[in-house]
This record gives sequence, structure tokens and C-alpha cells, in this order.
Amino acid sequence: MSTKTLTALKAALDPKAWSEDPDELAPHVRDWRGRYQGASPLLLKPSTTQEVSRILSMCNETGVAVLPQSGNTGLVGGSTPQGEVVLSLKRMNAIRAIDADNDSLTCEAGAILESVQGAAKDVGKLFPLSLGAQGSAMIGGLISTNAGGVHVLRYGMMRELVLGLEAVLPDGRVLSDLSGLRKDNTGYDLKQLFIGAEGTLGVITAATLKLFARPASTAVAIAAVESPAQAVDLLGHMKDATGSVAAFELMPKIGLDLAVNHLPGARHPLDSDPAWTVLIELVSPEIDRAQTLMESALESAFEKGLVSDAALAQTEAQMAEFWALREGIPEAEKAHGKAAKHDVSVPVSRMPAFMEEATAKAESLLDDALIIAFGHVGDGNVHFNVARKTPGSGDDFVAACAPVTDAIYDLVDKHGGSISAEHGVGVLKRAELARRKPAEVAVMRAIKQTLDPNAIMNPRVMLDID
Amino acid sequence: MSTKTLTALKAALDPKAWSEDPDELAPHVRDWRGRYQGASPLLLKPSTTQEVSRILSMCNETGVAVLPQSGNTGLVGGSTPQGEVVLSLKRMNAIRAIDADNDSLTCEAGAILESVQGAAKDVGKLFPLSLGAQGSAMIGGLISTNAGGVHVLRYGMMRELVLGLEAVLPDGRVLSDLSGLRKDNTGYDLKQLFIGAEGTLGVITAATLKLFARPASTAVAIAAVESPAQAVDLLGHMKDATGSVAAFELMPKIGLDLAVNHLPGARHPLDSDPAWTVLIELVSPEIDRAQTLMESALESAFEKGLVSDAALAQTEAQMAEFWALREGIPEAEKAHGKAAKHDVSVPVSRMPAFMEEATAKAESLLDDALIIAFGHVGDGNVHFNVARKTPGSGDDFVAACAPVTDAIYDLVDKHGGSISAEHGVGVLKRAELARRKPAEVAVMRAIKQTLDPNAIMNPRVMLDID
Repeated sequence: MSTKTLTALKAALDPKAWSEDPDELAPHVRDWRGRYQGASPLLLKPSTTQEVSRILSMCNETGVAVLPQSGNTGLVGGSTPQGEVVLSLKRMNAIRAIDADNDSLTCEAGAILESVQGAAKDVGKLFPLSLGAQGSAMIGGLISTNAGGVHVLRYGMMRELVLGLEAVLPDGRVLSDLSGLRKDNTGYDLKQLFIGAEGTLGVITAATLKLFARPASTAVAIAAVESPAQAVDLLGHMKDATGSVAAFELMPKIGLDLAVNHLPGARHPLDSDPAWTVLIELVSPEIDRAQTLMESALESAFEKGLVSDAALAQTEAQMAEFWALREGIPEAEKAHGKAAKHDVSVPVSRMPAFMEEATAKAESLLDDALIIAFGHVGDGNVHFNVARKTPGSGDDFVAACAPVTDAIYDLVDKHGGSISAEHGVGVLKRAELARRKPAEVAVMRAIKQTLDPNAIMNPRVMLDID
Repeated sequence: MSTKTLTALKAALDPKAWSEDPDELAPHVRDWRGRYQGASPLLLKPSTTQEVSRILSMCNETGVAVLPQSGNTGLVGGSTPQGEVVLSLKRMNAIRAIDADNDSLTCEAGAILESVQGAAKDVGKLFPLSLGAQGSAMIGGLISTNAGGVHVLRYGMMRELVLGLEAVLPDGRVLSDLSGLRKDNTGYDLKQLFIGAEGTLGVITAATLKLFARPASTAVAIAAVESPAQAVDLLGHMKDATGSVAAFELMPKIGLDLAVNHLPGARHPLDSDPAWTVLIELVSPEIDRAQTLMESALESAFEKGLVSDAALAQTEAQMAEFWALREGIPEAEKAHGKAAKHDVSVPVSRMPAFMEEATAKAESLLDDALIIAFGHVGDGNVHFNVARKTPGSGDDFVAACAPVTDAIYDLVDKHGGSISAEHGVGVLKRAELARRKPAEVAVMRAIKQTLDPNAIMNPRVMLDID
């Protein structure tokens, strides 16, 4: 790390645009779950795209590594510095424009997801990305990690919600396309490179996002199914019958039990005690219509034998209760003990076989294994977590699970799946990525080399360029 | 062009995999509209991905330029060879797999759009891409040009319909990801590079595409509006009121008049003679529901003063008649005389101002100007064509329109638009692209240089690499 560059950076920037104060740096050099502790000599806090450009071009000239950071809510160690300067987008949080006729919103990279959702709501529109960290996750990071969440089934991943980007290349050049076009076939779609690149190709400074009409009605139900295979059949039925499935989340009995026991005042939504349940959300542009649709689609599902029991939320409060059960699983699981977590995806049709094989494999490799597999079955994305029946496991257990993780990833490969469905590669999975996708990684490295020849952008992340 | 390479290619390939027969080459060396006449020494017709890989690696070693070609239905000269060898995908037309539970279909690049639509229909699903050339356009070309069409508003451009690709790099390496995942955050999304690249980065050999539930009901109406501004207001109303607008096409009085006069048996759908009409298509997963939705949404539009007259198709035959009017405009326009055509987009909110300014500009620059502006207003994409009131214009007129085109493109820039919304760059717009997006083109060229260092892939197209 060149002290000369740091001194030059501080001299070139507004005093508000940097800090060396350890107290201010502290939250920027560790991840929120406390799994990664890092260090950085300097926190940069530009307030304009021009400042970002100046910073990158200075760092590029002297080979100073930069870690771009927005909400720092990631799970895979991609935003914890180990000596890099931290470039925080937190001061660039303006909502620059909302164009209701064009169904688009333009904001800076540091805008918090919840405030973008709110700004869309204020003009009667919906920005549909929705996930646990929405109160602190920022748009730049959500784009850089191609965030998912619970509404991917209807609205797509973050990639599908981006109409345009403003991004600064490592050499300081600015690419800007914020006009919000839905159709533009003038050459390669360069924004796609930055989406999901985890900050390794440049810094996203602003984005134009897609807005949608707000549904006039929403219905939420929890239904009992026999197995993941039946959940997939039910999903197909609900999609065909309603055309408006906004979320379809699978929960195992153990997941629901843990959540009910952990959450104050929570109770089981069904009198039966099924092996699996699904949470289904439908939306409609018509008032009261979602409820009617849900009732009739569940009725025909009963007739087809796809569902054995179901509860339909009757009030908004009850909808929130149902969702709280689903959203409470990770926290309840954490309270039970540490687990080896696997954010994987397979084709929806392969989900049942994968779940069965992965469960059998984990149980054969580990005594006392407790499989807590839940999540976005509608997208083929399951959080396949391996815990212990005995409560109170610690990091030792997770470390001992390495062979289980390996076996699970092999099964993911066998079923044509992904070892990182929505959380990204970060530093956690970079070795696995290199091992499992060598041909693709070779091309990624060539692109990285082209756009970031001095390897200043997040060099330890994803591709591990050294 | 190295004769040695051609001889080596012929020797290395199955005799069915190449041809020098002028009769067989003829349709491959000119475009279907007869605007581009080219030449090629050799037509390659591989039947497997391995053959494509062998061809590219041999051409790459000796610097032989390759023009990949699928249905050859493009409008911008991107698929007409000028000395390159033609690599036709026409023998690679298999539908490899349909996975109804995963809502996905895997086919080879030479599969014709209509047969993909049909295969989806056979399993009760929908592949929504829909455009005039669907009887001959092939999937590889539709992906390479990121095709649009009339249902982009609901289902997106081709880019949004691709789950995975198999593509051969210029050096023969094969990248393959055909498992149909909806979520995969393992590194850069490399398939995005090939989508819309117009064959300049490699050859797409197969794709996994998204399928959808088939709507159980469809409604089509033609409604009178005062102006493009009112059309945009009506679009907003219909989106909010129905949530299921599948198409929203603007037609000027002159466009409808030309179509009615040109098409045998056609008649005006409205008794009034409005300055502008829109064709609206709604879909619903429920039987008969689309019709009801259309009626109530048009009723409230009347009450709001957004529509002055409307006709709702009562039968499937009438829906087809309404669509025939819209689809008949290009042909009717052609029969009237040649026109300077502009496939442009602007943000939906800017459409009214753009239309007004571009019309005034064209009329001020040309005596006898007849503006025929129609198309996908829901996507901000208009085909802004400039003809003459006097019938029978020829190529001279189009050539004389160069200053008009320039002025129109300047207005597109002013409104943050694109000079190629859905047709692509090809050879027709490569100079304009270089002139209007220099920063982006520099990055595109760097990527091209990385993946295709010997510039063998469609070198004259889009970036004009020589």
C-alpha cells in the first residue's frame, strides 16, 4: 500500500470525502454477522460520480486496491477489506428522478432499498425487490451482487430490474446510461458486465430501475404438501391456475417448528402437522381478486390431491404472521445452533431428487444431522442447511461439515445447479468457483484483465486476482 | 482469404457440412429484402457443436473471417457476407428438451421460432417471442440480435427469455450452460455478452429458453386517442387497471388508412376517423376474464376522457383482423413507396415530445413529407418512417432523406433514446454507433479484442473491425 497515494488522495479530495478515524472505519471493516474481521488504511466517502472517478484513476495509476462498499450486508465476505482502501457509496444516496409514465426510478448507488421502495410507493408504484436486509442494503451492492429475495418468481432478480447504469471504470472513465430505455440494441449491453460482478470491474454510482403497478390485492396462504415433489406439482398448478404467483416458499416441518418455538407469540398455521408446507403469495391488479383466485386455485388443488390442508390469511396482520414464520427460520435456526449453509439452485424439476439425495448424503456422512432445507422453490433455489439435532453447535461443527458441503456441491453439479444461487461468490466460494467452472473462470479473468488491467477493483473477491 | 484454409476446412468436415454450389449459396449471400448483395467462397453447415468448434478454431488459426447466419431475416445487413465464409446453423435445428416443471425449453440455434412456439404449445406452455418473421427467423439469430416484437411489454426482449446458452468462442472453446437455472450468482453472467452481440464474439449453438403459462383468455381492442400523449396516458391507465397488458401498439390515421386500402377485405374498425388509434391486447390466466377486464378498463378510460371511441374484438377472427391491420402497415407503406425508416426508442414519457418534434423537423426539411410513425409505444419504441405524400418514391428519395435521418437521430439523442431499438446495428448503423457512443464503443472494442483477438467473427458488423 503506497502511503504516497493515500496522502495524494486525501489532498485531492474534499475533507468530508475521507476518514481515518478508527471509530468511523470500524463498521466498514467487519461484516455484520461478525464472521469476517478486516482492516483498511482509509475510508473514502465520495459524494459525486466525479469524485469516484478521480479516486479510481489515482488508485489505478499507483496500483492501490479498492474495495467498493454499499450497505455491507453481504454473507460471503465480499465487502470486508483486508488492507484495501474502502470506497463507501453511503453519501451518494439521492433519488435523482422518478418517471411514473416510464415506470422508472433513478437513484444513486448508496440509496437504501427501503427508501427506494418507499419512493416508488409515494407515486403509486412498486419496486418489487424485497429481502431481509432491505433496511440497510443499498442499491449499488444489490446490483453488484444481483440480489434475489422472495419475489424473484414474479419480478426477476435485480438484473431484470435494472434499466440502466452509471459506472466508473478502474481508469476513471464514466459509462452512463440512465435514460430508462426498455429497448436499446446499439451494441453490447455493457451494464450486464457490472451487474453481479461484485465490484470487480468498476464502481456502480447510479442506476435506473424498473417500477411496476402496485397490486390492488394480495393473498397469502400456507398449504400442507407431502414432499418437495408435491410442492413442485402444486407450484405448476398455481402458476397455471392463477398466472400471478408472487412468492412460493417451501418450509420443512423442522423449520416451521423452530420458527414457532423461537418467535414470541407465534403459532402453527395448520392443525395438521405436515412434513412440508409452502407459503404462497398471489397478487392481482383488481381489488379483492387475489383472495378469490387463491381460494379457487387451492380448491382445485385439493381436488387434484396436491394439497392436504391449507390456511388462507384473512387479514393483513395474518399475512404478516405467515410471512414472519418463513422469515423467522434463519434466526430460529441460528438460535438452535450453527449450521453449514448452502445457498444452491437446481432446475425446479430436479429439486425433489436433489433434496432427497442431498438429505440422504448428509445423514450418511454425519451422525445427529438435522437438515433444514427451505426457501424459494419457485426459483429452484433452496437454502440447504445442515445442523445438528442436539442444540448448541458452534464453529467446530461447521468446520467438520466440509466433506458434507463438498458432497452437496457435487450433487448440485450432478443436477446442473449452482453453488451460489443468490448470495454470490465473495471470498467464501472463490476456490469452489475456480474448481467447478474453470472454462468460465478463464473467460471471466480475461474480461477482468481487459477492464481492470492493474487489478485494483476488489482483487480478492470472486476471481482472487493476485 | 486463404484457399489453403478453405481446402483444409472441406477436408476436415463431413461432406454434408459444406457447399460451394452457387445455387445453394445464393439465398445465403443476399438479404431477404434485396437491399444487400454479397458474396462468399464457402457455405459451412455444421450439424454439431463440435463441428462449429473445429471450424472456428481452424478459421481462427489462419485469420479467416466467419459470418454466422441463422434465418437471415435481419434488416440491417448484419447477415450478408462480403467475402467471409458463411456458417449457417440451419442443420442444427433440434429441440433438445422441454422441461415443463422448470418452464424451460432447450433447442439448437437453427430451430425456427415458429417451431419453438409450437413445441411449447404442445406441452401447454407459451414461448412469447412473436414477430413478423417468425416462420423463418431462427433462435440463434434472434438471440444474437436480442429480438423484440409485439409482446415485449409483458414478457421482455429475447434477452429476458434466455436462461442459458451454449456458445463457441472464436478459438473453439465451448461455453455451455443449458441447465435452465433461474438463479445463478457464480461470477459474471457470460451469456449476456453473446446476447445482442450480432455474432461478433462467437457462435451461439444452443439455448435454454423460458416458457410461460398459456393465457386462458385474450382480448384485443382498437381505441381512438387524440394524440401520442393521450396514448401514453391510456397505457398507464390500462397497466394500472388490468396488470395484464400484453401489447400496446400505436397507429396513426395514415397508417391505418394505408393498411385498410392495401389489405384485401380490410375495413376500418371504428366509425369515427381518429387521428390516432391504439391496438391493446390483454391476457388472463382465467377463462373469459380478459374480455371482462378490457371492457371495464376501457369504460373507466372513457370516463376519464382518455378514449373517445373503441371497438372490442368479439371473436378470434376479429382479433386476427385487428392485428392484421397493425401488422399490415409496413407492407402497405412499402406499396405506397419507399420510406426512410427509423427504428428508435425513447423513454415512454418522452414519446409525445419526440414524436411532435421529429414530425415538425421532417416536415420542415422535406416538401411533401408523409410521416408514418407506428409501433410499440408501450416499450417507448416507434418505427418513425418518413415517406412522401405522392406515391411511388424510390431509392432516390431515401438517399435524399439523409439529413432528415440525421436530424431525427439528434432528437433521439436529445430525449435520451436509442437509434436502434430492436433491429440492431449491423452494417447499416455502425458509423452512427461509433459517432454517437464513442465511450461505450471503446469498451466494446476492448471486449471484442479480448474474446476475438484475430477479429474473425463478423468483423464488418457493429464495430467494423478491420
